[in-house]
Amino acid sequence: MKLLILNGPNLNLLGKREVNIYGNQSFDDYFIKIQKKYPEIDMEYYQSNSEGKIIDKIHETGFDFDGIILNAGAYTHTSVAIADAISGITTPVVEVHISNVFKRESFRHHSFISPVCKGTIAGFGLKSYDLAVESFLNEQVKEN
Amino acid sequence: MKLLILNGPNLNLLGKREVNIYGNQSFDDYFIKIQKKYPEIDMEYYQSNSEGKIIDKIHETGFDFDGIILNAGAYTHTSVAIADAISGITTPVVEVHISNVFKRESFRHHSFISPVCKGTIAGFGLKSYDLAVESFLNEQVKEN
Amino acid sequence: MKLLILNGPNLNLLGKREVNIYGNQSFDDYFIKIQKKYPEIDMEYYQSNSEGKIIDKIHETGFDFDGIILNAGAYTHTSVAIADAISGITTPVVEVHISNVFKRESFRHHSFISPVCKGTIAGFGLKSYDLAVESFLNEQVKEN
Amino acid sequence: MKLLILNGPNLNLLGKREVNIYGNQSFDDYFIKIQKKYPEIDMEYYQSNSEGKIIDKIHETGFDFDGIILNAGAYTHTSVAIADAISGITTPVVEVHISNVFKRESFRHHSFISPVCKGTIAGFGLKSYDLAVESFLNEQVKEN
Amino acid sequence: MKLLILNGPNLNLLGKREVNIYGNQSFDDYFIKIQKKYPEIDMEYYQSNSEGKIIDKIHETGFDFDGIILNAGAYTHTSVAIADAISGITTPVVEVHISNVFKRESFRHHSFISPVCKGTIAGFGLKSYDLAVESFLNEQVKEN
Amino acid sequence: MKLLILNGPNLNLLGKREVNIYGNQSFDDYFIKIQKKYPEIDMEYYQSNSEGKIIDKIHETGFDFDGIILNAGAYTHTSVAIADAISGITTPVVEVHISNVFKRESFRHHSFISPVCKGTIAGFGLKSYDLAVESFLNEQVKEN
Amino acid sequence: MKLLILNGPNLNLLGKREVNIYGNQSFDDYFIKIQKKYPEIDMEYYQSNSEGKIIDKIHETGFDFDGIILNAGAYTHTSVAIADAISGITTPVVEVHISNVFKRESFRHHSFISPVCKGTIAGFGLKSYDLAVESFLNEQVKEN
Amino acid sequence: MKLLILNGPNLNLLGKREVNIYGNQSFDDYFIKIQKKYPEIDMEYYQSNSEGKIIDKIHETGFDFDGIILNAGAYTHTSVAIADAISGITTPVVEVHISNVFKRESFRHHSFISPVCKGTIAGFGLKSYDLAVESFLNEQVKEN
Amino acid sequence: MKLLILNGPNLNLLGKREVNIYGNQSFDDYFIKIQKKYPEIDMEYYQSNSEGKIIDKIHETGFDFDGIILNAGAYTHTSVAIADAISGITTPVVEVHISNVFKRESFRHHSFISPVCKGTIAGFGLKSYDLAVESFLNEQVKEN
Amino acid sequence: MKLLILNGPNLNLLGKREVNIYGNQSFDDYFIKIQKKYPEIDMEYYQSNSEGKIIDKIHETGFDFDGIILNAGAYTHTSVAIADAISGITTPVVEVHISNVFKRESFRHHSFISPVCKGTIAGFGLKSYDLAVESFLNEQVKEN
Amino acid sequence: MKLLILNGPNLNLLGKREVNIYGNQSFDDYFIKIQKKYPEIDMEYYQSNSEGKIIDKIHETGFDFDGIILNAGAYTHTSVAIADAISGITTPVVEVHISNVFKRESFRHHSFISPVCKGTIAGFGLKSYDLAVESFLNEQVKEN
Amino acid sequence: MKLLILNGPNLNLLGKREVNIYGNQSFDDYFIKIQKKYPEIDMEYYQSNSEGKIIDKIHETGFDFDGIILNAGAYTHTSVAIADAISGITTPVVEVHISNVFKRESFRHHSFISPVCKGTIAGFGLKSYDLAVESFLNEQVKEN
Repeated sequence: MKLLILNGPNLNLLGKREVNIYGNQSFDDYFIKIQKKYPEIDMEYYQSNSEGKIIDKIHETGFDFDGIILNAGAYTHTSVAIADAISGITTPVVEVHISNVFKRESFRHHSFISPVCKGTIAGFGLKSYDLAVESFLNEQVKEN
Repeated sequence: MKLLILNGPNLNLLGKREVNIYGNQSFDDYFIKIQKKYPEIDMEYYQSNSEGKIIDKIHETGFDFDGIILNAGAYTHTSVAIADAISGITTPVVEVHISNVFKRESFRHHSFISPVCKGTIAGFGLKSYDLAVESFLNEQVKEN
Repeated sequence: MKLLILNGPNLNLLGKREVNIYGNQSFDDYFIKIQKKYPEIDMEYYQSNSEGKIIDKIHETGFDFDGIILNAGAYTHTSVAIADAISGITTPVVEVHISNVFKRESFRHHSFISPVCKGTIAGFGLKSYDLAVESFLNEQVKEN
Repeated sequence: MKLLILNGPNLNLLGKREVNIYGNQSFDDYFIKIQKKYPEIDMEYYQSNSEGKIIDKIHETGFDFDGIILNAGAYTHTSVAIADAISGITTPVVEVHISNVFKRESFRHHSFISPVCKGTIAGFGLKSYDLAVESFLNEQVKEN
Repeated sequence: MKLLILNGPNLNLLGKREVNIYGNQSFDDYFIKIQKKYPEIDMEYYQSNSEGKIIDKIHETGFDFDGIILNAGAYTHTSVAIADAISGITTPVVEVHISNVFKRESFRHHSFISPVCKGTIAGFGLKSYDLAVESFLNEQVKEN
Repeated sequence: MKLLILNGPNLNLLGKREVNIYGNQSFDDYFIKIQKKYPEIDMEYYQSNSEGKIIDKIHETGFDFDGIILNAGAYTHTSVAIADAISGITTPVVEVHISNVFKRESFRHHSFISPVCKGTIAGFGLKSYDLAVESFLNEQVKEN
Repeated sequence: MKLLILNGPNLNLLGKREVNIYGNQSFDDYFIKIQKKYPEIDMEYYQSNSEGKIIDKIHETGFDFDGIILNAGAYTHTSVAIADAISGITTPVVEVHISNVFKRESFRHHSFISPVCKGTIAGFGLKSYDLAVESFLNEQVKEN
Repeated sequence: MKLLILNGPNLNLLGKREVNIYGNQSFDDYFIKIQKKYPEIDMEYYQSNSEGKIIDKIHETGFDFDGIILNAGAYTHTSVAIADAISGITTPVVEVHISNVFKRESFRHHSFISPVCKGTIAGFGLKSYDLAVESFLNEQVKEN
Repeated sequence: MKLLILNGPNLNLLGKREVNIYGNQSFDDYFIKIQKKYPEIDMEYYQSNSEGKIIDKIHETGFDFDGIILNAGAYTHTSVAIADAISGITTPVVEVHISNVFKRESFRHHSFISPVCKGTIAGFGLKSYDLAVESFLNEQVKEN
Repeated sequence: MKLLILNGPNLNLLGKREVNIYGNQSFDDYFIKIQKKYPEIDMEYYQSNSEGKIIDKIHETGFDFDGIILNAGAYTHTSVAIADAISGITTPVVEVHISNVFKRESFRHHSFISPVCKGTIAGFGLKSYDLAVESFLNEQVKEN
Repeated sequence: MKLLILNGPNLNLLGKREVNIYGNQSFDDYFIKIQKKYPEIDMEYYQSNSEGKIIDKIHETGFDFDGIILNAGAYTHTSVAIADAISGITTPVVEVHISNVFKRESFRHHSFISPVCKGTIAGFGLKSYDLAVESFLNEQVKEN
Repeated sequence: MKLLILNGPNLNLLGKREVNIYGNQSFDDYFIKIQKKYPEIDMEYYQSNSEGKIIDKIHETGFDFDGIILNAGAYTHTSVAIADAISGITTPVVEVHISNVFKRESFRHHSFISPVCKGTIAGFGLKSYDLAVESFLNEQVKEN
């Protein structure tokens, strides 16, 4: 299985920025840990502050990868273009947020991206990414 | 660890109602499976169509249990009282939804409950509950 | 034919409450008269002030009865949960109101229930229920 | 008893237009049937696509007829002038709609006409007109 | 001087309709009186319930008459087309209302017509028309 | 007959301020002219930039005068207190505006004062005051 | 004199829940004290988390008691049904809140219940109930 | 104890103005009675129609008095400046209204002043002031 | 090929009215030129100021013509009835506007007609009609 | 004549993405065809997913080219910066859309770009670009 | 050069009121310092809590002074009348705020005064006034 | 002291674009002048049309520089991501605008950036940058 973890604007500051909201671990450190936890999965990590480059990456991986785990950061709330990119690909996308966005400013309550994703996971700190990985695994209770 | 799975209105119809949205498995069948999957966890299940009874149950379990997994169904969008109940207890609550509520009618996009929960998981079918259980487990990548 | 007349909150006060809006006849008296008028129909009557119990009753009757005549009273304007219950059953539901709700406060102009019902009848006093019963009968002008 | 059935814009296309919403029977055929069903009632039928002519007709009949059954079509949602015409006459008006307007686009959920009518009947196909006729008849259960 | 008094929908019912709001004098009787009061003015009177005919009349008189006194009735609040007609002519238009529209329903507080008229006079009963005629006369206190 | 002309904020700048909107005549000059035009009327003139003093003046004159002609200037759009003062007195008040307020910024389209006045006259330059005076005179076409 | 103190959802947690907002005294303790303070009054106390049961209690007491002191908690902001229950009874109802609801989230600023109550008292801690009791007593300064 | 009763615009008309809403007793008469009722309290009374003078009075008394009972009248709904004055002082302020403002026009439902006051009392006629005085007294049921 | 050019209210004034927005050529002159430009097309031209007659014309041509080029003028922004007429026919309709409506008043930014048309062309002066005719021709770059 | 065709985000996926909305032809294939159709025009084509690069391109060509045909994709609805770029250049810009954006989600109904463009063409599939090219050609019916 | 520093409501409390927002220096102390800093400028200082007096002062100085530095306090957000006063004078006005108003309550984000001022400076504490003075000085980098 | 002047989209066109709003001096020329005016300050200048590159620059300088003077151009009104970047750094940011944005289109009245900046300066032409530099200097009147 091949998964892309795709992080949007300002997530490169993780561990430095607003530590009370986002925690003090850098994403690079976390990425090493999560790769070790799921050795059977081929994971790629990409971060950009540019809306255009995030769209490019979605196009590039969106027909071959088995899943994209997307934390679009602030673009979650403003980017119709990223939402259109997700609609245009075949790989399923899971939306994650580190913080509980619904506890924050009201402009963070609306996501252009949620309606075109498979599902949303928000508020569990970096563990939100773990849960997103789990959501792509088979060993769940079979419901159908 | 002691967890309550608490389901709101109409979720007793699961497997019968709107199968294209919710799937055709009853929650009772699913509950047996999830108990088997996590034998180390003491799980209780409660469902009610009544807002008042859901609040009673939150009060009853909200100081002793280790977690509540709450699918408040339609009350998600209308109940300030359930949100107040969650604010009043000490047990952390995780909000789950079977369907991706953000793909549905606009009145389902607002949740009174999200801002008072630890986190939200939506859109993964019944697997949303699995992910919620995982969110309470320790074996995650440590982020702090 | 088996029909349920299902009345929501405060309709137990009929004949006592706000007589200028709702008239001075109790619903129990009226129910006796309407049963006599349609002797060929098996009618049941249920009233509750509790949203949860109304949902329970819809679930209980919603797969076997031939029709439900629902006056959800104030829950018409606030209950997504009752609307979801109606979506989840197979029995057709007709929405009735005694008064012309569109002449009253603006918060009474919106109904969560209308979009999931077969049709709506409002403003004819208790005769709204007669018309709802008629709507289930065959002796109409055939239009298809 | 003398009743006017008054149809607004596009209802002359009935049976031709959007058959999935409105059915495939023309209103002229239906009018013959409903006259036969209520031979004791003197019924007149008028249709116009012009707001002004609908107002003229309401003025012309609004002091002598016993009732007007009005399906104002799209003018329901935009015409203050027709509502004013109804306020200005003495004949009671019943509003009807063939389809359940509350299931359709949100601009169809508001009616300028409802607050000045006796009552509203919507969603029963052409049978909505039958029920409107019934609403003018005496043989109801007496509620006062 | 040549003036047109142009009345919109339902104003033909004046003296019959909603007497508590509009008074019990017919406009025809009033028109005779106002002609007598201002014998030096060539006045024409036209009423229609049709938006299209009101526009036609504005076009017909809008380049030769010295003034139009327009009570557009309910079209005041809904007709962009009449406003456009006024913008397209050279004759100045004065908007009048018999009742104080600002005391009535909120949808009567907005006028598409006011911004394209010279001025507005509302609330003086039929005397609103007298004041509008006065507004076209020279014997005012010179202000420029 | 005793009339008060009551002008609100900034109207003391008339003839100096924004000449393209308000003309170049001072109100003092105009007041001399209008007094000459209606010698039979006892007119008083008062202007203040203070909301409180305008209210004081309304109280002072509002039980004895035969009419108040009020141009509340910018307070028209913001003062609930002046509206309450008008509701509290017995003298009828006519609202005037020099410019056509409906052609200007949207926050000038709403008046708190209109609903409590007898009528409104707007857009005729200083002649709006003449028309307001006329509205209090008897020599109109009798409509009742 | 017979008064009912009627508390809505989550008020059973008083003294335990959100102590910084509501204080740390339980309502049961408080009820003993207030009964002692007003020995001449026959007071009853009822609390429920269920909207339906609150309505039932209002119906049960609303024709015989001399007053109801209602803290509807979160239902204040969402329940049209409780408001309708109050409209349907003859006993006067006084609305109380422990905290100053106007300092809190904006969805707590609107009350469906205020317009149908005699008056509102909010923000005085548990003393709000004392003041509500006082409002029913005779020894006030006579104002009529 | 030293209390200021501070009344805003139009409350000088009490007993004269809108007697059906406000009663027919003047505030001066009432003030004599309330002083007699609470002889142990040093009460001052001040009324002004001017927003600026109300602010001046709040500044003047807002550091020495034990309480201010403020009925800001119409300024309740429009004055950010009075709210800022209250925030700037140390004396606690209780907001009162004679009528139940929530039963009146919707622009009276919002108060800029409530969020900066200790509490609000509305709808009890002049007795609202009695209750406000009571709220400053010690002989209540102790809740902390 | 048979095309109808259908113009709505005030477009008969073209060349006379608001020349800075619409240009100074009459539509009749333009119609002669466009017929010469496309001699192979059978074009009909109809203009009316009446909403009802525009609907009648759409019904009359809407099953046999190959296309309708509709400039609904001001009715674009207010007429649900014309939109319904377009939904009810089989001939494709192209919406045109002479001016760039999006540069003008905000009430001109919404069109009821766009969602039921094949496409929209706005802002090219009378050439908008040429482009609409081109849109019905075959000689385009084949895209499918 | 020199024209730029400028495509925004996700239009590189054309022919692959959401074929039911956009058709299955790639833009590169289409660009070869349209160049052949208009051999006398010097056309350039540029696509980017980056808002910043689209602005750079507008600046680069916006003073020398004879026209820009812009399909800004999702940036149409969110980019004030692209609109500002268009305002800052001298080359006229025509806005095109492949689909009828007014039939789609409501957030696609608003364009920041329309008010600063010469005109808009939407809904004709790839032919929208042909029509845009035509709009720059001289052989139209002369209207001025 | 002659400048007026004009402060609105509550700014007389500076140094006493809400010290965490506004600092603990009185404006009188600050005014002495700023006069010393710019000895070449003739500065006047005026403060009032009354909207009317602020308008009076603007009129009095607004034709002779070289500049007005206005901190309208809470009237910034509510006073159309002060904005009109600024429009009516010839002296340029610079708007200042001590705090960053955009970080505070949402009703403080709108200013009626900004659109009629030359510029706005907010958030620099009392130094905002220094910067406003600088904005009137010549020694800037020449930009035209 | 080390300051960054950071300009957003379209500000590279300064001196060419919309000269009536922005003046005819290029920013490069201006930057030479302002460097000469403040020789003691180490100033860097950066401009980009790309939201992502502006964020990159804020990250790069936001922990070492003493201040950032940011004119985010159109991104002011749409970019949550730039606002988040500012929240994530430690260097204080001052927002500047050349024009008075509050005089322009309403969508320019909202800034996502203001609430996370130290202060805002708008409307003084290029001199807004001078004032922003001044805001970082020590020689102000000391207010604490």
